[in-house]
Amino acid sequence: MTNQQDEAKTSALEALPLRDDLRGQSPYGAPQLEVTHLLNTNENTHSVPQVVVDAIGEAVHHAATSLNRYPDREFTELRRRLAQYLGHGLTEDNVWAANGSNEVLQQILQAFGGPGRTVLSFPPTYSMYPLLASGTNTQYIHGVRQEDFTLTPESAAQQVKDNQPNIVILCSPNNPTGTALGLDVVEAVYEAGEEFNTMVVVDEAYEEFALEGTRSALTLLPGRERLIISRTMSKAFALAGARVGYLAASAQVTDALRLVRLPYHLSAITQAAANAALQHVDVLLATVDQIKAQRDRIVEELGQMGLQPAISDSNFVFFGWFDDAHAVWQGLLDRGVLIRDVGIPHHLRVTAGTEEETTAFLVALREVIGA
Amino acid sequence: MTNQQDEAKTSALEALPLRDDLRGQSPYGAPQLEVTHLLNTNENTHSVPQVVVDAIGEAVHHAATSLNRYPDREFTELRRRLAQYLGHGLTEDNVWAANGSNEVLQQILQAFGGPGRTVLSFPPTYSMYPLLASGTNTQYIHGVRQEDFTLTPESAAQQVKDNQPNIVILCSPNNPTGTALGLDVVEAVYEAGEEFNTMVVVDEAYEEFALEGTRSALTLLPGRERLIISRTMSKAFALAGARVGYLAASAQVTDALRLVRLPYHLSAITQAAANAALQHVDVLLATVDQIKAQRDRIVEELGQMGLQPAISDSNFVFFGWFDDAHAVWQGLLDRGVLIRDVGIPHHLRVTAGTEEETTAFLVALREVIGA
Repeated sequence: MTNQQDEAKTSALEALPLRDDLRGQSPYGAPQLEVTHLLNTNENTHSVPQVVVDAIGEAVHHAATSLNRYPDREFTELRRRLAQYLGHGLTEDNVWAANGSNEVLQQILQAFGGPGRTVLSFPPTYSMYPLLASGTNTQYIHGVRQEDFTLTPESAAQQVKDNQPNIVILCSPNNPTGTALGLDVVEAVYEAGEEFNTMVVVDEAYEEFALEGTRSALTLLPGRERLIISRTMSKAFALAGARVGYLAASAQVTDALRLVRLPYHLSAITQAAANAALQHVDVLLATVDQIKAQRDRIVEELGQMGLQPAISDSNFVFFGWFDDAHAVWQGLLDRGVLIRDVGIPHHLRVTAGTEEETTAFLVALREVIGA
Repeated sequence: MTNQQDEAKTSALEALPLRDDLRGQSPYGAPQLEVTHLLNTNENTHSVPQVVVDAIGEAVHHAATSLNRYPDREFTELRRRLAQYLGHGLTEDNVWAANGSNEVLQQILQAFGGPGRTVLSFPPTYSMYPLLASGTNTQYIHGVRQEDFTLTPESAAQQVKDNQPNIVILCSPNNPTGTALGLDVVEAVYEAGEEFNTMVVVDEAYEEFALEGTRSALTLLPGRERLIISRTMSKAFALAGARVGYLAASAQVTDALRLVRLPYHLSAITQAAANAALQHVDVLLATVDQIKAQRDRIVEELGQMGLQPAISDSNFVFFGWFDDAHAVWQGLLDRGVLIRDVGIPHHLRVTAGTEEETTAFLVALREVIGA
């Protein structure tokens, strides 16, 4: 669209009684461009294995027969299968799911946030958190990290005490920096929040890609009824298109979410597809090791180019330092490689794809920066 | 559960920092009971036609191959197909969709409602409206109907002037009473709301079942940029399990909803299934006439039993008058027929099912009331 068309569109929209805090905003979303190598949205770039494709097709074909009926509002089979996958002694009573982890987080904010309440998070982090806060009328508090984007237990706990938030969201491994938090940070935040009855959410969307020895916050769940671990089938399971996010928490938390979820929010098709996929966990997770190998290769080669990649526990690498990061982003795009400019000066983020895609990215980057 | 277990569960939940207005609430939802004849949730009780089952299975099988990628955030093909189905010169720019019409309405309330804003509706009407208002922190205003549950243009317009709501929701055909509103009511509400820039939503979930001569509010859309018509694939299309609600409105409205929708809210599977189904509209709608015939039969026979059924433009019938409606509901359940006690004294609501289901309901009802 031209600028003139843009302006006409905005002014027509402004005539409607839009909520004040939405005025002048643009919709969230990475550009959907036609490019050879799409390494911008941290998708799993490996195709879904054929056995899983067939299982999903068959399960949905079967489920389609009774689509005239509402789905199981409790999605009991799916909760059971997800609990089984997570392990740690969790049962279906501890598990909840929704259409993507964005909806899981939205429901948490609807139940425990809202007008007059606050949510604290630590930018740079997942850019949907402030949008989800706005969408649920929860005040968003920008926490602070060290200059190298890390977060210490002491600093995190102090910020909880200073801000007394109703909810804290810790992203681990963090998006866009890629680094996992130590569990000492989660423990410190949880303890600091006790006085204020603060809900603590650990967003582990990328947990399956963590470096050897990184422990999941799932191990902290027993006895912590204010702790929530959110997960997704979008990344390690390579099912971003299926939109299945989930969480593990105390049974009280899942009961609370029943009060805010829209009835029948998970379709019978979604349930059938996810249940079918969860019967092939080993096959689905088979690409995780390959992706981690490419991720480690990116980190290593970026270092050799004189760049500074962050430690990555995820399927992407955050790196700098560029005088003009956007020019580098554009140079890569000109060479058919789309990565993400996450808006942090002097830095870019790239998804670890297949070996071929990784090579294409590294070759293009060397060209662009003349390394 | 026993009462003791219930109490223990409630007290554990109360320990969490739940939002104040959720305390003590129970989750929404009709009981999910195992009964021979399920006529309680206004589902289309006809199975999905085999040609549609196969088309959905095939489309999802195909879509499963690329589930590792995020879905089309703009669901362009689905919007185009829905616009084509609706006709009235609508294009994809006028159409929006979400996971069930509940989510469509939630997004409308997020964009145009919220803290400090109000939504007016006219009970008895769809019981989700106040819950959606609560979930989006929008104040719900209870409008008033005539004693026979009808709504006149004059009364509706006056209530808009008196309350100056940000949003009005008109359910037509109304659930649970079943009767459609005249378009004069919609026009009067729209005009009365001009002064207050009020958004007017007409929820036409059951429109395809309307009596001959009933006009859709779609005919009012041209030139009315504050008017929204919401629809669903759950009822006439017999796809409740697929969770696809949609709306038609000015392009400004769909742009506003882009600001509040969660990115990628409609999965690739949902899009594929809905697109496949929309290639078989004629087959899907073939049961509508059969259902209308059974609906008319129910109205006629209830009259013969000395009962008072409301005029029905939908796939259900609202009827009274019973000294003890709940006892009648229980009597029917004891005979294997589950209908809905919608909480309006002396009245019940039954879904028009197949001819066999309708017969089972009518036979059971005659037994229960001794007619």
